[in-house]
Amino acid sequence: MGEEWREAAERVRNWGRWGEDDQLGTLNLLTPERIARAATRARQGRSIPLGVPFDAYGPQGSSGMRRNPVHLMAIDGGDAELAAHLAGWGGAAEAQVAGMYAHGPMRFNDDYMILPLQAATQWDALSHVYYDGLLYNGYPATAVTSLGATRLGIEQVAERGGVVGRGVLLDVARHRNLDRLEGGAVVGPHELEAVAGAQGVALEPGDILVIRTGWWTHFLEHRKQSEWFRASPGLSWRCAEWLREHDIAAVAVDNPAVEVMRPEDGVMLPLHMLALRDMGMPLGEIWDLEALGADCAEDGVYDFLLCAPALRIPGAVGTPISPVAIK
Amino acid sequence: MGEEWREAAERVRNWGRWGEDDQLGTLNLLTPERIARAATRARQGRSIPLGVPFDAYGPQGSSGMRRNPVHLMAIDGGDAELAAHLAGWGGAAEAQVAGMYAHGPMRFNDDYMILPLQAATQWDALSHVYYDGLLYNGYPATAVTSLGATRLGIEQVAERGGVVGRGVLLDVARHRNLDRLEGGAVVGPHELEAVAGAQGVALEPGDILVIRTGWWTHFLEHRKQSEWFRASPGLSWRCAEWLREHDIAAVAVDNPAVEVMRPEDGVMLPLHMLALRDMGMPLGEIWDLEALGADCAEDGVYDFLLCAPALRIPGAVGTPISPVAIK
Amino acid sequence: MGEEWREAAERVRNWGRWGEDDQLGTLNLLTPERIARAATRARQGRSIPLGVPFDAYGPQGSSGMRRNPVHLMAIDGGDAELAAHLAGWGGAAEAQVAGMYAHGPMRFNDDYMILPLQAATQWDALSHVYYDGLLYNGYPATAVTSLGATRLGIEQVAERGGVVGRGVLLDVARHRNLDRLEGGAVVGPHELEAVAGAQGVALEPGDILVIRTGWWTHFLEHRKQSEWFRASPGLSWRCAEWLREHDIAAVAVDNPAVEVMRPEDGVMLPLHMLALRDMGMPLGEIWDLEALGADCAEDGVYDFLLCAPALRIPGAVGTPISPVAIK
Amino acid sequence: MGEEWREAAERVRNWGRWGEDDQLGTLNLLTPERIARAATRARQGRSIPLGVPFDAYGPQGSSGMRRNPVHLMAIDGGDAELAAHLAGWGGAAEAQVAGMYAHGPMRFNDDYMILPLQAATQWDALSHVYYDGLLYNGYPATAVTSLGATRLGIEQVAERGGVVGRGVLLDVARHRNLDRLEGGAVVGPHELEAVAGAQGVALEPGDILVIRTGWWTHFLEHRKQSEWFRASPGLSWRCAEWLREHDIAAVAVDNPAVEVMRPEDGVMLPLHMLALRDMGMPLGEIWDLEALGADCAEDGVYDFLLCAPALRIPGAVGTPISPVAIK
Repeated sequence: MGEEWREAAERVRNWGRWGEDDQLGTLNLLTPERIARAATRARQGRSIPLGVPFDAYGPQGSSGMRRNPVHLMAIDGGDAELAAHLAGWGGAAEAQVAGMYAHGPMRFNDDYMILPLQAATQWDALSHVYYDGLLYNGYPATAVTSLGATRLGIEQVAERGGVVGRGVLLDVARHRNLDRLEGGAVVGPHELEAVAGAQGVALEPGDILVIRTGWWTHFLEHRKQSEWFRASPGLSWRCAEWLREHDIAAVAVDNPAVEVMRPEDGVMLPLHMLALRDMGMPLGEIWDLEALGADCAEDGVYDFLLCAPALRIPGAVGTPISPVAIK
Repeated sequence: MGEEWREAAERVRNWGRWGEDDQLGTLNLLTPERIARAATRARQGRSIPLGVPFDAYGPQGSSGMRRNPVHLMAIDGGDAELAAHLAGWGGAAEAQVAGMYAHGPMRFNDDYMILPLQAATQWDALSHVYYDGLLYNGYPATAVTSLGATRLGIEQVAERGGVVGRGVLLDVARHRNLDRLEGGAVVGPHELEAVAGAQGVALEPGDILVIRTGWWTHFLEHRKQSEWFRASPGLSWRCAEWLREHDIAAVAVDNPAVEVMRPEDGVMLPLHMLALRDMGMPLGEIWDLEALGADCAEDGVYDFLLCAPALRIPGAVGTPISPVAIK
Repeated sequence: MGEEWREAAERVRNWGRWGEDDQLGTLNLLTPERIARAATRARQGRSIPLGVPFDAYGPQGSSGMRRNPVHLMAIDGGDAELAAHLAGWGGAAEAQVAGMYAHGPMRFNDDYMILPLQAATQWDALSHVYYDGLLYNGYPATAVTSLGATRLGIEQVAERGGVVGRGVLLDVARHRNLDRLEGGAVVGPHELEAVAGAQGVALEPGDILVIRTGWWTHFLEHRKQSEWFRASPGLSWRCAEWLREHDIAAVAVDNPAVEVMRPEDGVMLPLHMLALRDMGMPLGEIWDLEALGADCAEDGVYDFLLCAPALRIPGAVGTPISPVAIK
Repeated sequence: MGEEWREAAERVRNWGRWGEDDQLGTLNLLTPERIARAATRARQGRSIPLGVPFDAYGPQGSSGMRRNPVHLMAIDGGDAELAAHLAGWGGAAEAQVAGMYAHGPMRFNDDYMILPLQAATQWDALSHVYYDGLLYNGYPATAVTSLGATRLGIEQVAERGGVVGRGVLLDVARHRNLDRLEGGAVVGPHELEAVAGAQGVALEPGDILVIRTGWWTHFLEHRKQSEWFRASPGLSWRCAEWLREHDIAAVAVDNPAVEVMRPEDGVMLPLHMLALRDMGMPLGEIWDLEALGADCAEDGVYDFLLCAPALRIPGAVGTPISPVAIK
């Protein structure tokens, strides 16, 4: 594969296209004009959520680099009378709570979360993946330090009010007449083109593609984390040029990694490298597209205002999100 | 205050209004019709971010119940050659990384975050505050256990695609001809009415009020966490009835707690109790409204499509958000 | 079982024995005289570690209340040149690192850990378990608030220099001529007595019993977390009176919960209730006793100086430890 | 300083002394004979704790690379009746708790901790500091990856049952007739020698030096985190050769960094580099030596059995500890 893939990388590469200092990549395609047009697709006011839960029951295992989020209460409904126990115990924070509880009937609950930023529904920042020592637009890989991504961090997206634009669902599973694609199934550019055609939706520059494989339901049914990852169907890296030709702004899929997980031609995550590093195109992963798929099938309308803002986390290489499709 | 405040509580209380099982409160006011109408306000396609950073430099102290978020890299740009060191060290996760790095040039970065869910820009869930043993709609306070809020958790909002609707900025600071309100300043219902009038914006049921005090700039300038909290200006609890009369869906402010922090009439957070527990109205806190304020002052348009989706965290009593105002 | 067990609870209860305010329980038995005598058992100077790793590969699952620890680097060996990337990025912490790296050749590594305090080798604090609304010595269960255990926290142990004393290994597996006990095997008081007799070791008041079942090797071999928990062999609650008669100070076992996990007589963790709540006796769990077992079998000496200090974590209901047996 | 310091580095360097593969450094000096002899110093059975609290009120700030530990309850005394709220809510973990609470009266508390491993009382692992691209014994700095220290991690110590040995207190503050040293005070080798002489204690190879400056009381009195760090008194790097001559196994101090914090001769942490990287000698920091100092002053006995076992955290570059001095 090496040669062919590297030639594709040359062709899709957007380095310098939006300036030498650009850190936004294809999100530059989300121009005000396009956002305004996208908003006109929100005609009925249905806001359809596209996120999976951030909880203990997600697709991460017990020992890997990513784990399921841990949610812990700092104070809760069992503590209404806790001030009685704080006398002579603890420090300033305990005294503050006791003081608050002494000034009126107000009681409160508070909580923490510990999470890998890509544990569940997410955007990859452009800093998430690199090869040959370089990130998107030629930034050195070493710019992503232990203190965070000093370049191409997700705050670059958040501080520009993204990601908002016209979303287009390509329901590949439905097009194949399946509830979900089979394990290992590969989706190539011709199929994407065919799905769009069959759905009667015309792609436009700056579109955000939302591609339904149905694979999330495999996890919901079986809860087998390792299998869900390893056997995931998804896009072929050969979609990259097609995405570049259509000037797609971003792609999100209801699987773990947008692309098929089994290495095509023996190479790990070839589409990640082309999308994030060469094109500068964010990838959305672990989305839940079941409700959206049903809705679009019912009314035959496959585009919508997609609102999936990145959290403003300086230096982060990914972000948890709660995307909504507004039709 | 007791009597007066408790009488107001009776009057604003929305319990049962949307059914005995309701867990959404005033977000029920965000009907499809209103969302569709709100989308028509996104006329120019400018997406203005309203969030502050989730990082080490936020308004939380070193020892309190809430701390500034901790962002840590799980793997980064200094690890391109780490596979060489993993031979004979570690377990399955290390072997997996080594295996990935052996199959092609792909290298990746990944990260974690540890955060109080209300450390920075946020929505309070209705389960955040209670009194007299009861939460909104009469749910018992003990329903918020150490395992999470079994009722009124933020996932109730996320799973319905909220929060999306028509946002209206009330720029109180600008109306007072100030960069920001002074410490301890109290904003009452008459002033809100006056600001809306002066701005020429008519409030409608289901509006999401975004109120600018400018107080966030106090933190940016001084970085004094404790002072920023204690001296915060904000709404009077006497705004509750006015909010109820206008059927406002939610209120967000660029201060730590929407309401003035110094206890009015000696009671802690009286508006929190009325809003979250009696009205069932979410509160948005620690927003950055500087860019939005300037934008609205320039074009004289004070309403917009507000998109501030809650993260889908089952049982959470608040959620980090990255709200955008689309004009 | 109810009656019988409750009668045993009455008999073993140590409430008031060391004063109404006591928070140490049977650790009061670790008198200076006994500690000094215990030190004389460290005759050869071998320090044998008894802890399992605190890492991603431990016995906790992917979704439970306890998870395997997460270890993350805050800065590492890939960051030697990171100062070059920090110019104009980050805040005070980043500037501090850059400043340090500018003043000489010093480079450093630093790390974080996120862990359930009882994820691996541990002591249960007396505040870990309660019933009928009461903790050891009659403290109300509500004294363990969301802000921590205001009574009977592990700091009570740490601030008194514990746990140090004479350890005695009872190698039940070896006595049964097994590498490890079978799943579900129950060990009663007569067997403990018999093992001590066969080993030729005389128990004394204040001894810390270290009981080897070999069950930790089941986890090492199979890495089946759920099975390791559910099928765990261990002590019967009927050992409680025997432990009380011998005035044992603490018991530690190489299994998940000291006692057999399958509920005896249909009741969950009956020995936990008797030990922690009635006797005030700490329990040590998830120890690795393989090396110690082999060492004692070789020289026939089954007692030693046990040093297993609790971390000083105010309000904690358990503590990670790294116990050593010094022979 | 450069020349002089680099020459000292050559002289104190222990690389290869205990073999090319050695990862223990001066802890090799803790031979069984010496440990056995150390145990004879535990004559009265007093176990004196030397650790500070791991809590929200420690010496770490609100935004730095290290923060104060966060302790959160996963379940607590306010949850005795929580099973009633779990019906139809949550997943397997919730069902498990509900099931446990249905099988008998047992109720439990559980907790988490999030901490920088060097937030409070600690040992530095040999992997904590490096220069010129090399760690102790010539291991490459890049061996400390984002996945942890693949060489010289703290588990190397823990898995050998360390740290246990003869501790010797050098009470510098008392020798100067001060409650504590003044900010910035530097302690050189002659003073250490003089303190030992005045105390009448003879140093032996393999001793663990515990040096009291009294600086911890500065934090307790003022709680000024930044000042406590910046103004810290401590050892001069010129102590390194003296430590090497005496074949000291480890050094622990009641200050943030063993050595004086203000850069001597403009170089950051010169003693760290000599001790950890060249000598292979662990450093203990943020100890509380007030009780030990008083005890030794009273009975005139300055040596003891020191037991300060490292937690077994694979790949960690430091470890929280709860050291005890047994006299």
